Amino acid sequence: MKLLHMADLHLGKTVNGMNFIEDQRHVLAQVLGLMEKEPVDGLLLAGDIYDRSIPPAEAVTLLDWFLTGTAELMVPVFLAAGNHDSGERLEFGQKLFGQQNIYVEGTLREEFPAIRLEDEYGPVCLHLLPYFKPAEARALFPEDEIRTHEDAMRSVLARHPVDRTERNVLVTHQFVTGTEPVTQSDSELLLSVGGTEQISYTVFEDYDYTALGHIHGPQKAGRETVRYSGSLLKYSFSEEFHKKSVTLVELKEKGSIIVTVYPLKPRHDMRRIKGKLEDLLDPQVVEAADCEDYISAVLTDEEELADPMEKLRASYPNIMELNLEKRQRSGGDEVYADVREKTPLELGESFLELTCGEAEEKRMEFLKKLLEEGGLNI
Amino acid sequence: MKLLHMADLHLGKTVNGMNFIEDQRHVLAQVLGLMEKEPVDGLLLAGDIYDRSIPPAEAVTLLDWFLTGTAELMVPVFLAAGNHDSGERLEFGQKLFGQQNIYVEGTLREEFPAIRLEDEYGPVCLHLLPYFKPAEARALFPEDEIRTHEDAMRSVLARHPVDRTERNVLVTHQFVTGTEPVTQSDSELLLSVGGTEQISYTVFEDYDYTALGHIHGPQKAGRETVRYSGSLLKYSFSEEFHKKSVTLVELKEKGSIIVTVYPLKPRHDMRRIKGKLEDLLDPQVVEAADCEDYISAVLTDEEELADPMEKLRASYPNIMELNLEKRQRSGGDEVYADVREKTPLELGESFLELTCGEAEEKRMEFLKKLLEEGGLNI
Repeated sequence: MKLLHMADLHLGKTVNGMNFIEDQRHVLAQVLGLMEKEPVDGLLLAGDIYDRSIPPAEAVTLLDWFLTGTAELMVPVFLAAGNHDSGERLEFGQKLFGQQNIYVEGTLREEFPAIRLEDEYGPVCLHLLPYFKPAEARALFPEDEIRTHEDAMRSVLARHPVDRTERNVLVTHQFVTGTEPVTQSDSELLLSVGGTEQISYTVFEDYDYTALGHIHGPQKAGRETVRYSGSLLKYSFSEEFHKKSVTLVELKEKGSIIVTVYPLKPRHDMRRIKGKLEDLLDPQVVEAADCEDYISAVLTDEEELADPMEKLRASYPNIMELNLEKRQRSGGDEVYADVREKTPLELGESFLELTCGEAEEKRMEFLKKLLEEGGLNI
Repeated sequence: MKLLHMADLHLGKTVNGMNFIEDQRHVLAQVLGLMEKEPVDGLLLAGDIYDRSIPPAEAVTLLDWFLTGTAELMVPVFLAAGNHDSGERLEFGQKLFGQQNIYVEGTLREEFPAIRLEDEYGPVCLHLLPYFKPAEARALFPEDEIRTHEDAMRSVLARHPVDRTERNVLVTHQFVTGTEPVTQSDSELLLSVGGTEQISYTVFEDYDYTALGHIHGPQKAGRETVRYSGSLLKYSFSEEFHKKSVTLVELKEKGSIIVTVYPLKPRHDMRRIKGKLEDLLDPQVVEAADCEDYISAVLTDEEELADPMEKLRASYPNIMELNLEKRQRSGGDEVYADVREKTPLELGESFLELTCGEAEEKRMEFLKKLLEEGGLNI
């Protein structure tokens, strides 16, 4: 049995103010093309389908288009909501979709569904467990002592019947860690305090394959068969070197699993460039890669530059951000080196130099007046 | 062929700050019960399914429950969006639902769908035309001169093929008027300027029955077979005397249509009461109707009353609003009669008397100070 595993689509996400809907459609079309060429028995969607609980209308239209496409290919869909999704909203049409083999589980319930498929080796059971917080598990099972996400997951899984003689696949969305630290990126926005969000991969030992969502880099968590498929696209420059992909899971007889990774080609790649403005604008440098990529540029020039953003945009039309390394670094050094010895007025002067290039007299006078009114020893 | 016609569900609406979701579920359950007892061949939903473009999650869950119920009863659904709906959002699952005989049309397209059903008299064609504004029609048909809603409707319908030898039903949501003025109510919030929103019922002559939504009182528009089914519930006190209902349309051979109206019983009725506080609290008065009704009370007492709202709530637990007739009227007279002769301070005094019952000395002093600071001649 072949199952395609995806997660963290984040449909409707904007990155640096840029609308990514066409980028998302571009990659989803590849996934449909892949399933058309290489038929699979199911598509696993492990949460964060949308980027926020109330997605923009165009994201709703895009998901509709994608699911209509999978239905036309006769591929059943097994979807569990993520922390970015509104479970109740995702569940709209749950029973009606279920009749067309689109299984959607949005919210934690005392019993979560398991759908049985069959192949020549016997049954495969697909378990759909949406993202949940410890408080939700506590509300369902008040008799258990649940503090961490792992406590909550153990309580929920302990009550869920699994026939270990058969093959079992779990689709879920949590922060699951192996023995080594998970590679994170900026776009996951993890608000983990003191590690209570982390769940050890060992809780999933009843399952032959655990299809995870949450972490944007494709990777295993602890063992090869507990995996993050990674996000649909790079959603931050910290993901520059990620290879985005979908994961194909082939289940043969119990105990035999083959995992293959299919790369996805984005409409525009995301990359960082760094150097002097003149070098970055050199046609040879520009042409060395796709200049339509989403670009984060760091300029190392020492001197003042006139309109560097506009100049870069002429060569890199999709540039997203620009940072000036020199000024920040040296400014930073100056400010932080002797911050304790400086007076408030001197600190203000450094700040103005750092942000405006110079501390104009008019601004210094205004600052002085402000500090005096505030009763500070200038 | 029997078709049940409903409109203006406004799921998720709050009335005077009160959540109506349980009231809406209560009435929708009656509709499901009705269709179970008296099977119909289709349910027409003529727009304003939700109260706003982004409905609360509980409204999404409620619509899901209702549509799942109609699907279990094997009743096809023909839904056209209203001006309160977000067409794009409503269209989620459009093609997938269509395979289960739930037809949803959210946005104006050059060609709008017509679904053919059959009975012993031959085919019946159901045309789904969602709410649209003149600008949307202009964008599709720039060659037409479209100024009013009626111009727009004529342009759209003129291009839509209708076989007049067959029976045709149109489901749409607009402000359609007959020869007599339509009975409106506060909750429709019509922003009609100069009548450009009004569409004459005569534009629908190709259709044997036109199922309308928009106006909350069940009524015909021009002829018996161009009808508003009315809203699911009373959504404002101006609808006090409406009889909310669903409309059953029975189509026999071409030209023969029977319209029957089935009343709906709300969880709580909505009504106005008026009189002196003492009379309204008289147990005989309270028990004369259902005291759990949603109440708008007008008190006619001349003298000051201590906590009238609390006293009324003890007898009428679901009271929604309270107005004092006497004080408002006489207060209004006093203020407006000689407004030109009064000084700003005297006007302030009248205002305080009107709103607080008296002009306290502390407040008058504060007002005086304010007016002096503002340089007004007090």
